Amino acid sequence: MVDRFYEFCGGQSGAWRVAQVMAVVGEGLPLTPFVSLTPIDLSMPRVPAAWSVRGVRSNERYVQARERSALGAVQGDLGRSEAVCAAMIPIRKNAAWWALAQDERRALMEEQSHHIAIGLEYLPAIARRLYHCRDLGEPFDFVTWFEFAPPHVSLFDHMLTRLRSSPEWAYVDREVDIRLQRVGE
Amino acid sequence: MVDRFYEFCGGQSGAWRVAQVMAVVGEGLPLTPFVSLTPIDLSMPRVPAAWSVRGVRSNERYVQARERSALGAVQGDLGRSEAVCAAMIPIRKNAAWWALAQDERRALMEEQSHHIAIGLEYLPAIARRLYHCRDLGEPFDFVTWFEFAPPHVSLFDHMLTRLRSSPEWAYVDREVDIRLQRVGE
Repeated sequence: MVDRFYEFCGGQSGAWRVAQVMAVVGEGLPLTPFVSLTPIDLSMPRVPAAWSVRGVRSNERYVQARERSALGAVQGDLGRSEAVCAAMIPIRKNAAWWALAQDERRALMEEQSHHIAIGLEYLPAIARRLYHCRDLGEPFDFVTWFEFAPPHVSLFDHMLTRLRSSPEWAYVDREVDIRLQRVGE
Repeated sequence: MVDRFYEFCGGQSGAWRVAQVMAVVGEGLPLTPFVSLTPIDLSMPRVPAAWSVRGVRSNERYVQARERSALGAVQGDLGRSEAVCAAMIPIRKNAAWWALAQDERRALMEEQSHHIAIGLEYLPAIARRLYHCRDLGEPFDFVTWFEFAPPHVSLFDHMLTRLRSSPEWAYVDREVDIRLQRVGE
């Protein structure tokens, strides 16, 4: 059974050293030397930390079968030895987004913003995993975790620029961009 | 701000008296005299009880804009004085369901099973509310709560028979049907 629940913590230890914390939209997060990511049980008390965010790996909410096939064909794995750079990007969307019906959110996200298609272009170089936080009562709705090798930093930045200029991003009311380097690298 | 997180408990007290507990598919739940439903904070320890299920009121996962308009036009409210009968139906779907892409689940649920359309036919007599449980690590994926007046019991049973014979229900691997009466009635 794969672990489904995780806690991201900013603190004095962790497998990832913080290079930079940027408040992209709204309130940022305190700068800490390290970020850790730990499988948890939701009944566990929170780890004391400068900040923590809990998330769950869940089922797909928007990806369609043909898109999943395309993604699966080039999927980049997490944990690759050369991928010593990571980014943790927690975001929150506004009430207007969550009040939309499923087909309206899908249309904004993909038919208008090409979110899935853009991510696909950057695979397998930019590997990622989505954690859902909203229905755990967290201050963010999602955390996306990205891993890539140092030569691909500008590629990653290019991808973010495209996503952040899309119609979907007009609904983002908080976004923090935390750049990390694997400890020991 | 509307409460989003709730705990259903089977125990010795509560606003709803248990009339019957039926194991429809898979393991049932212990019979208790009462069921309570309480707004919670997820950091609170669980209330000691014969059984408890936590759920979150969340955004729509399948309903499209035109369906939401149709539902909204005839929506039955919870808490109506004449609706002294309730049913709490926790269900779990199997791994095959959760491994499907969004469009595959939507097609099974609505285009093949007419889940939303069937529910609409029974409005406003049969009012309901959905709670999501899966991403809280609960033993059920959803709880649906229904309220209706005593003359509509057979109507409610008819609706359940139709839903349970649909292709979507082939993916249900646990379902419990708890019938309740409002205390004081």
